[in-house]
Amino acid sequence: MKLTILGCYAATPRTFTNPTSQVLEINNELVLIDCGEGTQVELRRNKVKFSRIKHIFISHLHGDHFFGLVGLISTFRLLNRESELHIYGPKGIKEVITLQLKLSSSWTSYPLYFHELDSKEPENILNTKKFSVETIPLKHRIYANGFLFREKPGDRKLLMNEVLNHNIDVAYYRGIKKGKDAILEDGTVIANSKLTSDPEPSMSYAFCSDTKYNPDMVEQLKEVTVLYHESTFLEEHAYLANPTKHSTAKEAAAIARAANVSTLVLGHYSTRYNDIQLFKTEAEEIFSSVELADDGKIFSF
Amino acid sequence: MKLTILGCYAATPRTFTNPTSQVLEINNELVLIDCGEGTQVELRRNKVKFSRIKHIFISHLHGDHFFGLVGLISTFRLLNRESELHIYGPKGIKEVITLQLKLSSSWTSYPLYFHELDSKEPENILNTKKFSVETIPLKHRIYANGFLFREKPGDRKLLMNEVLNHNIDVAYYRGIKKGKDAILEDGTVIANSKLTSDPEPSMSYAFCSDTKYNPDMVEQLKEVTVLYHESTFLEEHAYLANPTKHSTAKEAAAIARAANVSTLVLGHYSTRYNDIQLFKTEAEEIFSSVELADDGKIFSF
Repeated sequence: MKLTILGCYAATPRTFTNPTSQVLEINNELVLIDCGEGTQVELRRNKVKFSRIKHIFISHLHGDHFFGLVGLISTFRLLNRESELHIYGPKGIKEVITLQLKLSSSWTSYPLYFHELDSKEPENILNTKKFSVETIPLKHRIYANGFLFREKPGDRKLLMNEVLNHNIDVAYYRGIKKGKDAILEDGTVIANSKLTSDPEPSMSYAFCSDTKYNPDMVEQLKEVTVLYHESTFLEEHAYLANPTKHSTAKEAAAIARAANVSTLVLGHYSTRYNDIQLFKTEAEEIFSSVELADDGKIFSF
Repeated sequence: MKLTILGCYAATPRTFTNPTSQVLEINNELVLIDCGEGTQVELRRNKVKFSRIKHIFISHLHGDHFFGLVGLISTFRLLNRESELHIYGPKGIKEVITLQLKLSSSWTSYPLYFHELDSKEPENILNTKKFSVETIPLKHRIYANGFLFREKPGDRKLLMNEVLNHNIDVAYYRGIKKGKDAILEDGTVIANSKLTSDPEPSMSYAFCSDTKYNPDMVEQLKEVTVLYHESTFLEEHAYLANPTKHSTAKEAAAIARAANVSTLVLGHYSTRYNDIQLFKTEAEEIFSSVELADDGKIFSF
């Protein structure tokens, strides 16, 4: 998995920081998560190939998470995109995007599908050969979802010594990697378990922004590989977190610890802070494996 | 007058060029003209004080001229703006902005007024003490207006020698500058024309983008000080101008010459060109006083 942070600051875009957007590469497929104003320029700056994006997930309809979406959809048309684009986001997203396309007489040249969300329970919203996606209900000022991406298990790994010992023809390798037993020319059956080992463990990525501290989500986040959890505030401004329905770095770390994730990535910092290192320091008091998102930063897991 | 070009390239925002937006300072008042995606960041980069913007004029509802508007309106709220904001633009602009504010539960903290335009004739849409604005109907793929800004005449200029000769008290200066005659203590009336000279000539600025070549607008543009006219294409791509309803640099120059403007500013270049200098070269074959807009460039007239 590769995670490219296009923007991870709260509220307004500024000269040197961008609102939320990130690209997740999972099993060689790209998805875009949130799309604040300026996202299309950040995609260019980070040399992400536009045509590889087939699915866009929007957490909620605050501007810093979706004001760049209509521009990106329009730019795809100007670039003569032909392949399908799927948008997943809160109810209302279809109306607001299509109204803008209508007013500008700029319908897309490619099939554009909206998958509007309104459930308050986790739901599976996408299954491809490569990965699955389920929603993570968040507690924010307006209806919001996080998204949990899980790689589909890869092929089983051939134990080459065993395969060669049994003189199995290369033509059967693909089937064996998919879990089939081998049948030799004399009819002998070799169990798959003798010829293969388990595939690489599947990774998972949970995006949770924006939300107030919400232990209800821990059960769903158990053992995920990487949790991106918003941390708008430091402890000194904890009194602002509840009324605005945001989290502190410590609260994000508490969720990470309870869910026993492998790595916590912090982001969605209030623009009042000059030194984001303090978020890491505070979170590490609770949880040891903490990374800081920052615009243009790339994580490989 | 001072004109700050925030962006002047057609179609999509790119890493180093921005879609249309400009700030006009006229008689010490600021107005914003068009608002492509990223405008709020360009305002910051150019150190334009947000609170000085009271009027925003949107030519048409193509994304490269207005996708940045909702973000700017939202940011004004986050910055706790209190003063009125007036938006002038095509019918539909109110619905699309208010729908987005509704979906994000982010109503403005300040009075926001929409002035929707649907007339196909020039109309006066604003009169302040400092300037007036009238629409310039454009011919584009969708309903579009240019805007003609005219400074209100300044005060008459005191002829200080005459004023002192007549021993006129300083308390009367303001009235005399506004055009009043002076009445001396003995009742003698001194005609204003003997005490003052004409004010500085009033300047005017016409913004015309996007439009195909349209000689119908020449009458309205007669003798304006500065004409900003789009020139999306060079002559070699003139065959693209008519179907897309854009202009070439030569066509922009032909309008400038016919209207006898003082200065033509070209902009809205297609992003296919690497060297915008060619636009000037081509326009100068028709009209001598040509300037090239470019992102971040400031013109003082």
